[in-house]
Amino acid sequence: MPDRHPGFLSVMVPAVLIRALALAAAGAVFLLPLARSAPAAPAIGHFTLANGLEVVVIPDHRTPVVTHMLWYKVGSADEQPGKSGIAHFLEHLMFKGTAKNPAGRFSQAVATIGGQENAFTSTDYTGYFQRTSREYLKTLMEFEADRMTGLVLTDANVVPERSVILEERNMRVDNDPSARLSEQVAAALYLNHPYHHPTLGWRHEMETLNREDALAFYGRFYAPNNAVLVVAGDVTADEVKTLAEETYGRVERRGVFGPRVRPQEPEPIAARQVAFADPRVTQSSVQRSYLAPSAARAKPGEAEALDVLAHVLGSGSNSLLYRALVVDKRLATNAGAWYVETALDLSRFGVYATAATGVPLSKVEAALDEVIVAFLERGPDADELERAKSRMIADYVYAQDNQATLARMYGAALTTGLTVEDVLARPARLRAVTADAVREAARLYLDKRRSVTGYLVKDIKDAAPHEEKRS
Amino acid sequence: MPDRHPGFLSVMVPAVLIRALALAAAGAVFLLPLARSAPAAPAIGHFTLANGLEVVVIPDHRTPVVTHMLWYKVGSADEQPGKSGIAHFLEHLMFKGTAKNPAGRFSQAVATIGGQENAFTSTDYTGYFQRTSREYLKTLMEFEADRMTGLVLTDANVVPERSVILEERNMRVDNDPSARLSEQVAAALYLNHPYHHPTLGWRHEMETLNREDALAFYGRFYAPNNAVLVVAGDVTADEVKTLAEETYGRVERRGVFGPRVRPQEPEPIAARQVAFADPRVTQSSVQRSYLAPSAARAKPGEAEALDVLAHVLGSGSNSLLYRALVVDKRLATNAGAWYVETALDLSRFGVYATAATGVPLSKVEAALDEVIVAFLERGPDADELERAKSRMIADYVYAQDNQATLARMYGAALTTGLTVEDVLARPARLRAVTADAVREAARLYLDKRRSVTGYLVKDIKDAAPHEEKRS
Repeated sequence: MPDRHPGFLSVMVPAVLIRALALAAAGAVFLLPLARSAPAAPAIGHFTLANGLEVVVIPDHRTPVVTHMLWYKVGSADEQPGKSGIAHFLEHLMFKGTAKNPAGRFSQAVATIGGQENAFTSTDYTGYFQRTSREYLKTLMEFEADRMTGLVLTDANVVPERSVILEERNMRVDNDPSARLSEQVAAALYLNHPYHHPTLGWRHEMETLNREDALAFYGRFYAPNNAVLVVAGDVTADEVKTLAEETYGRVERRGVFGPRVRPQEPEPIAARQVAFADPRVTQSSVQRSYLAPSAARAKPGEAEALDVLAHVLGSGSNSLLYRALVVDKRLATNAGAWYVETALDLSRFGVYATAATGVPLSKVEAALDEVIVAFLERGPDADELERAKSRMIADYVYAQDNQATLARMYGAALTTGLTVEDVLARPARLRAVTADAVREAARLYLDKRRSVTGYLVKDIKDAAPHEEKRS
Repeated sequence: MPDRHPGFLSVMVPAVLIRALALAAAGAVFLLPLARSAPAAPAIGHFTLANGLEVVVIPDHRTPVVTHMLWYKVGSADEQPGKSGIAHFLEHLMFKGTAKNPAGRFSQAVATIGGQENAFTSTDYTGYFQRTSREYLKTLMEFEADRMTGLVLTDANVVPERSVILEERNMRVDNDPSARLSEQVAAALYLNHPYHHPTLGWRHEMETLNREDALAFYGRFYAPNNAVLVVAGDVTADEVKTLAEETYGRVERRGVFGPRVRPQEPEPIAARQVAFADPRVTQSSVQRSYLAPSAARAKPGEAEALDVLAHVLGSGSNSLLYRALVVDKRLATNAGAWYVETALDLSRFGVYATAATGVPLSKVEAALDEVIVAFLERGPDADELERAKSRMIADYVYAQDNQATLARMYGAALTTGLTVEDVLARPARLRAVTADAVREAARLYLDKRRSVTGYLVKDIKDAAPHEEKRS
């Protein structure tokens, strides 16, 4: 399942594709005994093996469970032109086995010991994770280290898997009008940067991906010195270090990985609009994406200000957009805003609204714009600012409660240009956000020239954007 | 100067960049004694040297002049991501001299003998041409063959030339609002194909292009087996063959050049709009580009039908768009249509109109759409069809009169997937176009889901696209 922003349509989220492979039996209590006491900030372990593998250890001794994640610093934005989808295809193919561990053995082992496993691909990273009882950590590491170099692909196991990813695209995008529109919005938003192509890939290119493509991508990007290991759970940094050296440590460093340089965007200068009509659409909606800096690319404090901005404007039923469009004016059945902080390059800020039955989309968009224009004038008031900050800091604290969420926080940070310190500093940085900083971020980035507005309608005749008032 | 479609704003034409380097003194009569008698169809010579260089000879014995053009099958769509502009930059750098002929010697020789020279870069090809008195043909070939492999670049000659291309971008695009909009329209139109990036390059990438980039591009693409020599003028095919073997024939074949495969577009599904505001705009205008097949990619007869369609809809003051918008309704000061037939991959069909003073752009676009919708219903009438075809065939015949135009016709065809036979067959193919074929082409390709509509305005408030009527 894709990542979800709270209260937000799944289709507008960043393209992180996750698949649950072998879910443990529901209700296996020993796996999920969520302790509700407020956890202390963990003492993070952070070191690098001789072969370049970066390791992060997040001790969490509440239960005898470990979460083991291996993150590669490669995603769909690192694909070469014409090969869209190869990062995600390789993620699937990583389950096809090695000489030492033939297809299925790794997954079966995880299932046998009552574990869970998952894999995910985004624009910037590809990750593999398992969660098991703590005593199996070394086993997980042995399996994962083995497939870092030992993958065996044949046409016999590659070709059928290609049908699987095509079917996945069918299900997730082609049969979902809002996902199709989101793909078009991203393609129109990024004029030059590879974020313009979908992580799943364009269908016509996916159809041509083959064994050689997968092995070339694997050979180029899968190496200990291009990966980050994140282990969270009932372990110490020293234990993890020893185990990692005995397993991953035996994999040789390969290639040289400098800064990840992708084609960058020209200065955005023109507002864009995309209309997509599909007879399956039951409620029209409007979504707008603005180019906005990611945490890795922002000036100090700016990403946190954008984050607060998204919360004030559009997170939950108390947000400005929801109150104005849904509660007060009854023009929409949903409305909100979001910001993707985690990205190696230029990221996105979004707003959206779903029209109430019978309300023209032009009216909904006009109301949405009114909220933004008013906000640019006044910024957040003291109460709005404090509520948003408190809630976000609380969210951060609650996230410590979930081992996998916590591990993902670090993995995503370290594969998108951030550091362990950046993750730890988040509450303090949120606390420091001022009303002026939020308003300034809104003024800088909620500029239509940086944006693409998408209209999702049943009939193209309903897609007419609203006529703006002349001054 | 960029290529111009008759009566069309310079900014919407395909990105062919030509530079006149050493113009001969105006009025040098011996160079341009345009014979006005209708020329016979020339007997084209067409052969390939042992090293793979393809040669086309177009005899034209009216005056003792030759036009010598060397075309490389490489353009901006062959650039690697992040290096936009390198094809055009290299075109400039090709004048920096070789070990044998230091900088300036070639151009000076052409100027001394009273010749002209030019170079041009498009998305699909890069060309170099000279026109001189016939006795200098071998000299031209020697110079051109020498710089096919002998180019010497140093930081001292590369870095200042980079300032030249940046200034060229300033002049042609950055200081021209309509050119900026056209760049944005193309970028939004092509979601995956490299036609989405400008031939001049994105400024921020041009700024980083260096000697190594230029030499890598040169080494990869400049080879006799990736080039087409076109010689038009007072020569025979046998003479040219002998001279070409003595000059170009000495350059060794290099590399292997198969079909040029670029990332292709996904099926277009969503109408897009781009608004660009600039205080320098004096008259608002609207332009729309639709994805349409090039001659090389179209089904038989389809490209000619699109060409006729562009003429009927929007070529000249008797066209449907001009008559409706400018003459009858007085909403616009100009209106028209165009089609780019010559492209290796998916090409474009365009319509445009410039608003009359005080007329809202939404009204102009609505009128433009009305003309298109009516045309989709009825197609061209017999008179419109015949007039367009006659005029286009006449244009083709008149083009034979101009040696350089004729040579360009063949060079562009052979570097974009067409053949000598395709060029020769044009009048017959135009004659065969039926009203049904034109209407069918319009129905297939004038579909908004295949299009981007661009709005050029002084103030963004004037950019609101028109509200479409609800059925």
